[in-house]
Amino acid sequence: MEEILSSIEFQMSLLLFIALAGYLLASRINQSAVIGEILVGLVVGPSLLGLITYTDFVRSIATMGAIILLFVIGFEFNLEDILNLRYLFIALVGVIIPWAGGYGLALLFGYPAPGAIFVGTALTATSIAITANVLKEIGRLQTGAAKAIIGAAVIDDILSLLALSLSGSLVAGTISALSIGVVLLKAFLFLGLGGYIGLKYISAFLEKLDNQPIGQKYPEFIFIFAMMIAFLYAMCAELVGLSAIVGGFIAGVSMCGVCLRHSRSIKEGAEYLYIIFASIFFVSLGIIADFKAMTPELMIFLGALTLVAIATKVAGCGIPARLAGMSTRDSLIVGFGMSPRGEVAMIVALIGLGQGIIDQGIYVVLVLMSLLTTVITPIVYRNWLYREDLASDAG
Amino acid sequence: MEEILSSIEFQMSLLLFIALAGYLLASRINQSAVIGEILVGLVVGPSLLGLITYTDFVRSIATMGAIILLFVIGFEFNLEDILNLRYLFIALVGVIIPWAGGYGLALLFGYPAPGAIFVGTALTATSIAITANVLKEIGRLQTGAAKAIIGAAVIDDILSLLALSLSGSLVAGTISALSIGVVLLKAFLFLGLGGYIGLKYISAFLEKLDNQPIGQKYPEFIFIFAMMIAFLYAMCAELVGLSAIVGGFIAGVSMCGVCLRHSRSIKEGAEYLYIIFASIFFVSLGIIADFKAMTPELMIFLGALTLVAIATKVAGCGIPARLAGMSTRDSLIVGFGMSPRGEVAMIVALIGLGQGIIDQGIYVVLVLMSLLTTVITPIVYRNWLYREDLASDAG
Repeated sequence: MEEILSSIEFQMSLLLFIALAGYLLASRINQSAVIGEILVGLVVGPSLLGLITYTDFVRSIATMGAIILLFVIGFEFNLEDILNLRYLFIALVGVIIPWAGGYGLALLFGYPAPGAIFVGTALTATSIAITANVLKEIGRLQTGAAKAIIGAAVIDDILSLLALSLSGSLVAGTISALSIGVVLLKAFLFLGLGGYIGLKYISAFLEKLDNQPIGQKYPEFIFIFAMMIAFLYAMCAELVGLSAIVGGFIAGVSMCGVCLRHSRSIKEGAEYLYIIFASIFFVSLGIIADFKAMTPELMIFLGALTLVAIATKVAGCGIPARLAGMSTRDSLIVGFGMSPRGEVAMIVALIGLGQGIIDQGIYVVLVLMSLLTTVITPIVYRNWLYREDLASDAG
Repeated sequence: MEEILSSIEFQMSLLLFIALAGYLLASRINQSAVIGEILVGLVVGPSLLGLITYTDFVRSIATMGAIILLFVIGFEFNLEDILNLRYLFIALVGVIIPWAGGYGLALLFGYPAPGAIFVGTALTATSIAITANVLKEIGRLQTGAAKAIIGAAVIDDILSLLALSLSGSLVAGTISALSIGVVLLKAFLFLGLGGYIGLKYISAFLEKLDNQPIGQKYPEFIFIFAMMIAFLYAMCAELVGLSAIVGGFIAGVSMCGVCLRHSRSIKEGAEYLYIIFASIFFVSLGIIADFKAMTPELMIFLGALTLVAIATKVAGCGIPARLAGMSTRDSLIVGFGMSPRGEVAMIVALIGLGQGIIDQGIYVVLVLMSLLTTVITPIVYRNWLYREDLASDAG
């Protein structure tokens, strides 16, 4: 029995069952499918029912899901859409203010400075997975606000990475202009080279393959090739210290213009993979959070930190967006869209825990803060900022 | 660096890269893509280059791949196509003769009786994954011979399961009519009930969902549901002691008539999953085999056992097929089609090793025999039995 419960078949069917339950719940409460999936994941996970735990298999599949998710999102963007000085401005202020907010709040709650530095760093990260998925769901990926969010989030990822390596150095007292420069250089090299090679060579190569005997004989060849590139880019992103999903995204952006005549569609195939694996990724976000480790004091800290996390991103990204000429509503969309911390903050928390700089309590708080900020964006979008759009779409 | 090499991104991109190399090799030597994938897997695996090992992640993904593979194959069959007394006859003789051949050969080579019983049992199993895939590749899944192979292989799986539990009991000396009856009953109950519920209720339920608000709101809902059923059936098959892939197959058969109007296509989606994951399954077959453990004596035993394995299936399935009225060529197609032992024999070997009944040497021989029988069928099909068909298809 034990053996069956740990089998791939059982875990896959359970994860997909949870995802389906999430859809039903989301449909009932009229929220994004993502919210339903996270909530049901929370219910069946260690927090409540304990039916499923965050096993290595779940982690592997969820990682794949997040990469495929951003790969699919990337298909809807051009590189020029994202590279923009305004977005740099939004991202920069949107990293500094949350960092200061998290650091200050942690000190206020009496945590030592090294731990507070990590709390601040966890607040800098933006995970675009959720926001991009909600925008995709409601058909608003091609708006100016969406482009600003994606563009700023990619830059944000670089800045968070910088903040992470800075906080390590700050804690260890070995900070230097050189170390900052190396981190920045690697990240920009990856983005620049990856985008350039992808757009200039890989796209052209795929189109060429499509007309070669190998592409005509095996219509699935190019699809396998494209997915390999997606994982390869994800790996390279990790190698330079960015999060893997940024690599998946850049791979998707690179291939968005590929036009195939004989082969299976890359976009369609990636979307089917996304249906299965991104669902599991969202479910896993619920599973990873374990409420049981919480004490009343930590609950208060969690509440305050979550408020600070959202307020500092809404202000830190929304105000620069407004200053850059966007409308108030679009600025709010950008602000709330940048709020989800997702798996990026969880990774920061994990590094802090591993280095002994934060304890188990703060670790759980950071994971749950990350989850809460992630849950709030789709709710705010559907019930406030995009409410009228959705009503007129449905009419 | 170590961390990156064990990351999901690296493993996925490497596995897909190997699959692509397999396609190129297969195209160059004019063989099935499966053969190319297995061979390249062998080259990069522990046997030669040692670039990739059979990690838990590879095993998980390969298991998923095998289930999805048979799920997709199942889509092309009706239950009535497979349930046929002729196929029972082919399967029955095709289990008894290989068992006797393997048992006799192992005794001849001086192995003790308990080990010889397991060698015989390993020779009873048929893995339809490879044969079905080759028939799909060359567009011959809808022929009478293909139906006989699939039908007999499903029954064969039940008989092999019976043989496995019998050999355990034989070695332990606790064999009884009751234990045989229980094994058979569970297997037939699963096939009967699974097929009946699938065809009668699940198909109808999916079509009903397609017209409900949830199906119309989320076009991906039914696809997730169908994949959940596939893994659930695979799990149930394992629970009753059949191999998981038989469950995936029955799930596919159950849904082959489902007609959806609003939702994403189950078949198309499953095929995209299959492109990625079945490729990885085939690559993994090459990775799992480790030539390095072989000694000259074991090499001779391996050669003899592989010949016996193929000869006994070709005779044991081919002669009954001929007697049942099939043409000589079709009977040979059935005989060679039933030869691959695939992962089923590897599982038998693993059980024998785990119980201490066979040693590491025989274990490796059984794994490699399994691989060799698997490699031979596509070669025989393409270069002999289906040679003229392929030539006229190409013309």
